[in-house]
Amino acid sequence: MTKRSVVVCVGDELLTGLVVNTNVAMIGELMLQAGLPVAWSATIGDEEDAIVDVLDRAAADADIVIITGGLGPTQDDLTSAALAKLVGAELVRDEQVVEDLRRRFKSFGREMPPSNAKQADLPRGASWILNPYGTAPGIRVEYKDAVLYAMPGVPGEARHMITEQILPELTAAGIAQLIRSRLLHCVGLPESELADRFPDLATAANPKMAFLPGGGEIRLRFVATGESVEECDRLLDAAERVVRERVGEYIFGVDNATLEGVVAELLSSRGLTIATAESCTAGMLSARIANVPGASKFLRGALVAYANDVKVDELGVPAELIDKAGPVSEEVAAEMALGAKRKFGTDLALAITCAAGPEPQDGAEPGTTVLALAGVDGDVQVRKLRLPGDRPQVRQFATTFALSLLRMHLQ
Amino acid sequence: MTKRSVVVCVGDELLTGLVVNTNVAMIGELMLQAGLPVAWSATIGDEEDAIVDVLDRAAADADIVIITGGLGPTQDDLTSAALAKLVGAELVRDEQVVEDLRRRFKSFGREMPPSNAKQADLPRGASWILNPYGTAPGIRVEYKDAVLYAMPGVPGEARHMITEQILPELTAAGIAQLIRSRLLHCVGLPESELADRFPDLATAANPKMAFLPGGGEIRLRFVATGESVEECDRLLDAAERVVRERVGEYIFGVDNATLEGVVAELLSSRGLTIATAESCTAGMLSARIANVPGASKFLRGALVAYANDVKVDELGVPAELIDKAGPVSEEVAAEMALGAKRKFGTDLALAITCAAGPEPQDGAEPGTTVLALAGVDGDVQVRKLRLPGDRPQVRQFATTFALSLLRMHLQ
Repeated sequence: MTKRSVVVCVGDELLTGLVVNTNVAMIGELMLQAGLPVAWSATIGDEEDAIVDVLDRAAADADIVIITGGLGPTQDDLTSAALAKLVGAELVRDEQVVEDLRRRFKSFGREMPPSNAKQADLPRGASWILNPYGTAPGIRVEYKDAVLYAMPGVPGEARHMITEQILPELTAAGIAQLIRSRLLHCVGLPESELADRFPDLATAANPKMAFLPGGGEIRLRFVATGESVEECDRLLDAAERVVRERVGEYIFGVDNATLEGVVAELLSSRGLTIATAESCTAGMLSARIANVPGASKFLRGALVAYANDVKVDELGVPAELIDKAGPVSEEVAAEMALGAKRKFGTDLALAITCAAGPEPQDGAEPGTTVLALAGVDGDVQVRKLRLPGDRPQVRQFATTFALSLLRMHLQ
Repeated sequence: MTKRSVVVCVGDELLTGLVVNTNVAMIGELMLQAGLPVAWSATIGDEEDAIVDVLDRAAADADIVIITGGLGPTQDDLTSAALAKLVGAELVRDEQVVEDLRRRFKSFGREMPPSNAKQADLPRGASWILNPYGTAPGIRVEYKDAVLYAMPGVPGEARHMITEQILPELTAAGIAQLIRSRLLHCVGLPESELADRFPDLATAANPKMAFLPGGGEIRLRFVATGESVEECDRLLDAAERVVRERVGEYIFGVDNATLEGVVAELLSSRGLTIATAESCTAGMLSARIANVPGASKFLRGALVAYANDVKVDELGVPAELIDKAGPVSEEVAAEMALGAKRKFGTDLALAITCAAGPEPQDGAEPGTTVLALAGVDGDVQVRKLRLPGDRPQVRQFATTFALSLLRMHLQ
């Protein structure tokens, strides 16, 4: 029979609207990939008997129970106590863990508050899961035919603990499948067209492929299972090779890469400088380039020309051209890019002019977007697009496609 | 005994990581305010018997059961069928609802796919809840001592249905308390200082007050209960009056107001134009002003001066001043604002210069931020701040405080 898991989340704050529970989705995805799909999940307040009750039901129903929350230092953190009650064991304070906690606080220049010692209480027979990312260690306990893992509720700490400790342990014990995943970031092809290029990969069982669109880019996710890390990585490498052969020019990075980060790297390594000229995005593009720490190495400045006469006065776009071609036109975008390059004395300049909506602008329908890139040798590349969505989405997508145009030019 | 509720969420996508479940937090907050706190919540996949099972347990345990999801047109939408099985009634197709669905599709210029007729199936004895915001109507059914409400899983539709239909019905029946809430948006006072000013309101039982910080502003939320809308509103009006008496200058709006929206309104109504000059924020401030549709009425342009010599060449900041006072100084910020006002020929100009981090910049520690506002009559207001947080947060907070400075000047 397929093994399965249950997720139990503990904390009043999840039921009163103070905190949106993102842990179930995060854990659900990881457990599914590991071959231990989540059958159901329960969220329960800070009430010992209610926690014991739902853990009992979870342990009866699943092979693995993942618990989040209730491991903090305060009176209403009840997960250890509930686990002790569940398995009928007493809570024992682990002086070694108290010492570790004290040292951890000292490293931040603080005394450990006495209440934190509570985080060193372990049900007899249970074991600790190390937490290098926070004060609360996790707890592992066996009950009925299930293994229960209690993790902190803080999403970052929970993610580290499940990926770095719990899943590897389950994999080593032969309970979870070994999984490795890889993200390939793609800009410039619509999702339907991407899907059409990969009828083979999209339906393959291993690695599994998924398309994750967002913010104008599409992430291709591959999840491989296998007997060893090397075997998984070989499968992932092979899939990545196929993707790069077919749509390589649209792939800008792997895993944690960001489009602005890749562009920053390309500009820095070549010692090139850049400026932007923007109308509807009104600075979003330059702000995004400046997301990258150390952007002063390549970003000199930007000119936001929201009013048409600013395009004329500050970027040197001929007034007759705006009258004739309209402000959202290939001709005007090209002049804006050339104007920004002159003004800021940069090697490159990117321009965006668009009708972001909700109303049409000087005859251009909402979503109409023109990008221009003035290159090192004085040439200008222009791209006209029709972007979907509302005003925020059109502006967001416009910056993504502008950065993508720049990346392709540099590569 | 206090009445209580349970939330049951249906859908594989919630357990496999495809969708983060935001409904529990949204419903939990509303039910708590309505005097029907959520005791627990369960998330379950698209499996009929498992849904019946958890609904049975929920109905035994709560006065009100709110169900989300599983009302769509596909094979794996099983909520109506599960409700029918739960109460032992057959599913009956409501031809009137089929007709409504058909008309709805027609109004979008589409034929109704045959599968959608399934959304018109109702367990005998249950009743419909209208959904003007989507195709799936909700379902109301009584079972044991509980009332069960099934809503669509789409968060926007679910929010409309619970606030506009379910809660008013429960209030009219005397099951839920009548509640009314109000948000007051505040910028410029730290949370601790705000809390100190309201020892009375913060501990009052009705209306209940909460501080919700985010993005550099703090929203003060008041929730009142009472016998009538008028009584609730009187309580909210009284609380708002107290807040405005004590910290009125920092309150920029009510309920759905945004800081840029309020600023846009003030600029438009006075026929004033504005430009910005930015270094670290690199266009985030002007982009935020342009979030408001129709911003071309008041926003003329912006100059991002990321490099120091751009501040000199484009904004007329004296090079010696940058050398002497440093780029992140009150003197330079003032010159940047004056320079932008000259360059764009506007009535007003806002400038931001800051050290966003992670590294110190020309001697300024990360978080050091200077704002300047050049006014209509040529005067310049300057404010120096030390903002907390990392690079994204410092830049975000800087734009919020700059807009707040502008708002206070205009009011």
